[in-house]
Amino acid sequence: MTEPTTLTTTPGAALEAMRAARPLIHCITNFVAMNIAANTLLAAGASPAMIHTPEEAGEFARIAAALTVNIGTLSPLWVEGMKLAAEGANAAGRPWVLDPVAHYATAYRSRANAELLALSPTVIRGNASEIMVLGGETSATRGADAADPVAAAENAARSLALKQTCTVAVTGEIDFVTDGTRALRIHGGSALMPQVTALGCSLTCLVGAYAAVLPDAFEATVAALVHYAVAGENAAADADGPGSFGWRFLDALAALTPAELEARARVEAA
Amino acid sequence: MTEPTTLTTTPGAALEAMRAARPLIHCITNFVAMNIAANTLLAAGASPAMIHTPEEAGEFARIAAALTVNIGTLSPLWVEGMKLAAEGANAAGRPWVLDPVAHYATAYRSRANAELLALSPTVIRGNASEIMVLGGETSATRGADAADPVAAAENAARSLALKQTCTVAVTGEIDFVTDGTRALRIHGGSALMPQVTALGCSLTCLVGAYAAVLPDAFEATVAALVHYAVAGENAAADADGPGSFGWRFLDALAALTPAELEARARVEAA
Amino acid sequence: MTEPTTLTTTPGAALEAMRAARPLIHCITNFVAMNIAANTLLAAGASPAMIHTPEEAGEFARIAAALTVNIGTLSPLWVEGMKLAAEGANAAGRPWVLDPVAHYATAYRSRANAELLALSPTVIRGNASEIMVLGGETSATRGADAADPVAAAENAARSLALKQTCTVAVTGEIDFVTDGTRALRIHGGSALMPQVTALGCSLTCLVGAYAAVLPDAFEATVAALVHYAVAGENAAADADGPGSFGWRFLDALAALTPAELEARARVEAA
Repeated sequence: MTEPTTLTTTPGAALEAMRAARPLIHCITNFVAMNIAANTLLAAGASPAMIHTPEEAGEFARIAAALTVNIGTLSPLWVEGMKLAAEGANAAGRPWVLDPVAHYATAYRSRANAELLALSPTVIRGNASEIMVLGGETSATRGADAADPVAAAENAARSLALKQTCTVAVTGEIDFVTDGTRALRIHGGSALMPQVTALGCSLTCLVGAYAAVLPDAFEATVAALVHYAVAGENAAADADGPGSFGWRFLDALAALTPAELEARARVEAA
Repeated sequence: MTEPTTLTTTPGAALEAMRAARPLIHCITNFVAMNIAANTLLAAGASPAMIHTPEEAGEFARIAAALTVNIGTLSPLWVEGMKLAAEGANAAGRPWVLDPVAHYATAYRSRANAELLALSPTVIRGNASEIMVLGGETSATRGADAADPVAAAENAARSLALKQTCTVAVTGEIDFVTDGTRALRIHGGSALMPQVTALGCSLTCLVGAYAAVLPDAFEATVAALVHYAVAGENAAADADGPGSFGWRFLDALAALTPAELEARARVEAA
Repeated sequence: MTEPTTLTTTPGAALEAMRAARPLIHCITNFVAMNIAANTLLAAGASPAMIHTPEEAGEFARIAAALTVNIGTLSPLWVEGMKLAAEGANAAGRPWVLDPVAHYATAYRSRANAELLALSPTVIRGNASEIMVLGGETSATRGADAADPVAAAENAARSLALKQTCTVAVTGEIDFVTDGTRALRIHGGSALMPQVTALGCSLTCLVGAYAAVLPDAFEATVAALVHYAVAGENAAADADGPGSFGWRFLDALAALTPAELEARARVEAA
C-alpha cells in the first residue's frame, strides 16, 4: 500500500516546479482536443506545440521536454508521425504519454495502438474501459466514452503497468494511478467533466507537462491528476452546465496556487 | 399541409427517448466544427465519436447508432472515408445525415457532394443557399454563410426530398423541414447563432442523434431542430454577444427538460 | 517616422468599411486555431471559409476576397494546398497574409515557410521570435510561444519588409507594423492574450479581412491590430483568467463600434 505521505514531491511543489520550467510539450492529439488541450497546457503553465507530420515529428520530439500521443482521430500519416515522435522521444530520453482513445473500437485502431505500446510509453492514461481492455479484460463500451467505473479497472491497470513497466492512470470519478508497485487514488473533479469533450485528452497533455519536470513519472502523473481534480472542483462550484464549466475550468487551472493545491489535494492509499 | 399535432413522437418525448438511449453518433465533420459538435452532442445527451480514415470509417459506421457527414474541410482521404462510412451505415441499416457545406463553391466540392448524395442520405441539412443549389436553383452565395432566406429554399427542399427520397432540413431564421410530403416550420433560435461558427454543423450531428433513436427521420429532424431552437432562445436571453452565447448555448442544450421543450416548441404547419 | 495622423483610413473608418463589405476570407490555418479563428472573423464582421486541399485551394483563393496561410500544423498535402492557394490569390490580385508559426523549429517547417515566402505574401504577421529569425537574427525560442520582446524584433521586421516588399507585423505586448518605410506601434491588448491559444493565428485571419477591404496593406494591418488591441483591453476588464477572457474577447470584437475604436486607438509613431 502506498501512503500519499511517501510522495517525494508533493502536488504543490510539483506545480511550482512545472510553472517555473514552463516545459515545451509536443502534443500529437485528435482534432476534437487540439484547442482545449493547448489551452489546458497554457492555463496550467506549460507551452504546447502541436506537430504531427512524419517529416518533422521525430525531429521535434527531440527538442520538446515531453511528448504526448492521443489516437482519437487516426489516419496512416498520423500513425507514422506518432511512431516517429515516440522513437524520437525515446532516443532523446524524454518521457512520453500514450492516450489509447477507444483503441478497441476497430481493428485498425487496435493495431495502431499496439504499435505505440511497443514503443514503451512512460505513462498510459485512459478511462476505465480503455484500461480494462488493455489489461486483458472485457468491457461493454463501444465508443470513446467510458462504460465502466474506475474501480473495475484497478487490477487491469496494475497488470498493464507491470507488463509495460510504466505508470498507468485510470481517470474517472475517482482516479487511480499505479506503476505496478505503488498505487494511489485521487479524489475531486466534477460530474460535469465527462459532459465536456476532450478533457481526458487534455489531461493526457498535462501529465506530459508534469512528467517533463519531475523525474518520477508516477509522482508526475499524481501531481497532474491532483491539479485537474482540484481545478475541476473549483470550476464546478460556479458552473451552470457543461458550457460554463468549460471556461471556468481553464480559469481554475490558471488560478490554482501551489499552497491551495497542497491544502486541497485528496490523495488516498490504494 | 402537415399539422404539428400529427407528430407521432412529440419533441419532449423525443428528447426523453434520445437521452435514455444516449446513442453513439459517428461524426465525420470539419476541423472547425470538431470540438463544438462533440460538445453539442454531449450537452444534448448523446455520445459522439469522430472517426474518418478509410481504414476504419466503414467498420465504425456499422457499430454506431447513426452517422453524420459534413463536407466542410475536404481532402481525398476524407472523402474516401465519408463514402465508406455512408456505405457502412447503409449496410447496417443505420440512418445517416449529410451536411453539404458550400458544395457549390468549387468543382471538387460539388463532385464529392454528388458522390455522397448518390449514397442516399437519410436526412440532408443545409442552409438556404446550399439547399437551393441542390434543388436546381441559383444563389448569390460564394462561401459557407447563407446569402438567402429559408423561405426562398422551401420549393427546392421539397423537390430535393422527393428526388432523394429523404428528409431535407433548411435551417436559418425560421427552419423548414420536409420529406417531400410532410412539411413543418420551426421557430426559435437567435440572431446570434450565425455569428458563432459551426452551429449548423453541430446541429447536423444532433439530427443524427435523434435519427438514431426515432424510426421516423422526419420527426427526428423536427425534434432536433426544436431542441436547438429553444436552447438558442434560452441562451440568447442572457448573452452579450457571440462569445457568451457559445457557452450559454451548451448549458441550455443540457438544461432543457422534456417538459420545457414540449411547452416551448413552436412548430407550424407549412 | 510615421505619424499616426497620416493614416488615410483611420481604424474606425476601416472597421466600418470591413463590416459593410463582410469579406469572404479564405483561411488555411492550423488545427488548434480553426474554430477560434473562424469565430474571430465572424465576431469582427467578416465571413470565414476554411479550405485546404490542393484539389480546391487554388480555385477557392480566386473566389475569396483575401487569403491567410498559417503553418502551425503542417503536412505535405497542406503545404501543397497553401502554395496553390497563394498562387491563386496572386493570380486573382487578392492580398494574402502569411503566419510563419515556429518556422525555425524543424528543417521541414523552415523549407515550407521559405517556399511560401517566395510566393510574395502581402503581409507577414508573427511574434518577435519568428520575425527575428526571418530577419536573419537569432532567438532562444524553440516552440510556438515567443521568447523575445517585440522591441527586439523591430530591425528584423524592417529588413524583412524591405527584402520581401511587404508589410510586416510583430505582435506582442506592444505591436509593431512596418512596410519598410512607414512604421507604427500599437498599444493595448492584455497579458491574458498569450495564455489563450491561437489568438495570434486568429489575428492573422483578421488582418486578411481588413486587407481584403483596404487597398493599403500597411493601413489594413494597423486597423486589424487596433481592433484586436482595444477588444483585448475591453475583454480583460472583466476577465478572471484565460477561460473567461476567451469568450469575452469574442463579445468585445463584436461589440466595438467604429466610434469607440477611433476614440480608444493608441497608435504611436515608430
